[in-house]
Amino acid sequence: MKEPPGFLAACRCLPVAYTPIWIMRQAGRYLPEYRAIRDRVSFLDLCRNPELAAEVTLQPVRLLEMDAAILFSDILVPVEAMGVKLDFSPGPVLERPVRSRMAIEALAIPSIDEKLPYVLETIRILRRELAGTPLIGFCGAPFTLACYLIEGKGSRDFATAKKLMFSAPELFHDLMDKLTLMSIGYLNAQIDAGVQAVQIFDSWGGILAPADYQMFALPYIRRLIRGLDRKGAAVILFIKGCAGLLELIRDCGADVVGLDWMVSLARARQLLGPRIAVQGNLDPTVLLASKDCIEGAVRRILQENGGLPGHIFNLGHGILPATPVDNVRFLAETVRRLSGR
Amino acid sequence: MKEPPGFLAACRCLPVAYTPIWIMRQAGRYLPEYRAIRDRVSFLDLCRNPELAAEVTLQPVRLLEMDAAILFSDILVPVEAMGVKLDFSPGPVLERPVRSRMAIEALAIPSIDEKLPYVLETIRILRRELAGTPLIGFCGAPFTLACYLIEGKGSRDFATAKKLMFSAPELFHDLMDKLTLMSIGYLNAQIDAGVQAVQIFDSWGGILAPADYQMFALPYIRRLIRGLDRKGAAVILFIKGCAGLLELIRDCGADVVGLDWMVSLARARQLLGPRIAVQGNLDPTVLLASKDCIEGAVRRILQENGGLPGHIFNLGHGILPATPVDNVRFLAETVRRLSGR
Repeated sequence: MKEPPGFLAACRCLPVAYTPIWIMRQAGRYLPEYRAIRDRVSFLDLCRNPELAAEVTLQPVRLLEMDAAILFSDILVPVEAMGVKLDFSPGPVLERPVRSRMAIEALAIPSIDEKLPYVLETIRILRRELAGTPLIGFCGAPFTLACYLIEGKGSRDFATAKKLMFSAPELFHDLMDKLTLMSIGYLNAQIDAGVQAVQIFDSWGGILAPADYQMFALPYIRRLIRGLDRKGAAVILFIKGCAGLLELIRDCGADVVGLDWMVSLARARQLLGPRIAVQGNLDPTVLLASKDCIEGAVRRILQENGGLPGHIFNLGHGILPATPVDNVRFLAETVRRLSGR
Repeated sequence: MKEPPGFLAACRCLPVAYTPIWIMRQAGRYLPEYRAIRDRVSFLDLCRNPELAAEVTLQPVRLLEMDAAILFSDILVPVEAMGVKLDFSPGPVLERPVRSRMAIEALAIPSIDEKLPYVLETIRILRRELAGTPLIGFCGAPFTLACYLIEGKGSRDFATAKKLMFSAPELFHDLMDKLTLMSIGYLNAQIDAGVQAVQIFDSWGGILAPADYQMFALPYIRRLIRGLDRKGAAVILFIKGCAGLLELIRDCGADVVGLDWMVSLARARQLLGPRIAVQGNLDPTVLLASKDCIEGAVRRILQENGGLPGHIFNLGHGILPATPVDNVRFLAETVRRLSGR
């Protein structure tokens, strides 16, 4: 019998022939083929065009032989379907921030089929085109979405969002309720359309004290994961700034925890226990340096994993636009060469 | 016999009557009295004027009864004395980045007496004015200084600095050598002039993977601390983004580790062991919220400390300019009320 693709096996902590690798933001500006498409179409229009979104999703799989594809989209796309107009210039800007009870009540729980048919169509195209390579869907974690909705744009510390969270917790929890409900429907629709894994991106979870993460963010992650009709799909939770949160999230229901590079992979595995797979955790900046340097860092990360099953290689955050493509290719080759049985 | 000031006792893990408190950037824009002075003089001119620098240093002690004063200055002030012209607009901008062997060789190890007499004069004024309140001096950690020198300005990820570190490690280490040597002289001069504690600010240490911190940053912290002629002064190490680094730094020679808010204080104490005091670690955003919320957070942090000696209350990072002064006063009162024996 053919072995299952390494990525999906690793998500289940099963043995694999070599450590599978994919890269956050692997369909991105470092690729000339991606830039060629983006020259003709805006970021949001690209997200909304199933043929083009599928095309850029496939690029890193075809060009760089990544072991998994991740749907090209943005965590804020479903927020627009809730009724909040959105633009990218180049960071996300919402037409108006969501800070009042009225604004929260006005948020719709969208029918994904009706409001985001292009996301599901992209997934269906991809499943036909990808053959054996697994496809990852995703959503933003409720806390990260709430940060953007309240702040109205990106921010270094999301002080307005956190101030509302601390000062009007009942309002904040109501917003989190709605975002969780929306996200359950969104991920379930993606699973129905064919994704074989889903990643929850908590890009801003790391700005919370562990006690606050436990009170304001984690319950919604749990509820989101519990609400999934998984149909076998693996669940990955990625929190940027996870080092202080690992003990809290080990029982959240995720199969895989995505690690940024600010924590030792060995330490993380120790804290998470043997049943949770890990994904990561190369510093994206290393890909700007020499091949020797890249090989050394790969060797160190594989060593920190200690040969345990349940490791998916990835960066600790999105790949930098200035990354030489040749270094990415070398990275993938090196991971395979050094991890192969 | 009169008890030593609580702050210095806590630095030594000795028992105190109540948990001492000071606040990073306590002489700052949230204070109208500070803004009144800054209206008349630029940031750098304020650093260079001993009478005014002493005045703003004293403000939070007089107005808010903080248990320690921290010298008003900037971590980049001594870098200018090495020959790199500096401006603030409002973030630091260096006239030219330091990226070549020639640029590194051109850096001078300044005589602090000659090049930075105003820093030492500020300290002497403060020791006269402060009476019993301890005075903290400080410097930037070599890694953080190197980040600014190489990048030439602030940055989100200091990719240029890290790229140089990975690609030309011998060049990077030479720069770190010089910065360490300069910092030893700088802190020793501050101790000679009268500071009773020194804090090393590694504001950007947290952007490194633990293995890279261990290779590129930590050896210089150790050497810096070993190079001090302490004359009884306590040494505090603050790394923003310390959660994944605590085990590495427990033996670096610091008496106190300053914690950001992204790690549980209980967990940090466990990892650091009983001989190292901790400082922190309230999320600065909490001070934008209600008094109830502030009191709840103080209670939680004191609880996480579990009544152990060796805790200095502080924020996990600099106080936000939008913070209401009344909330800061309430914070200090609350820490005393809830921690008093």
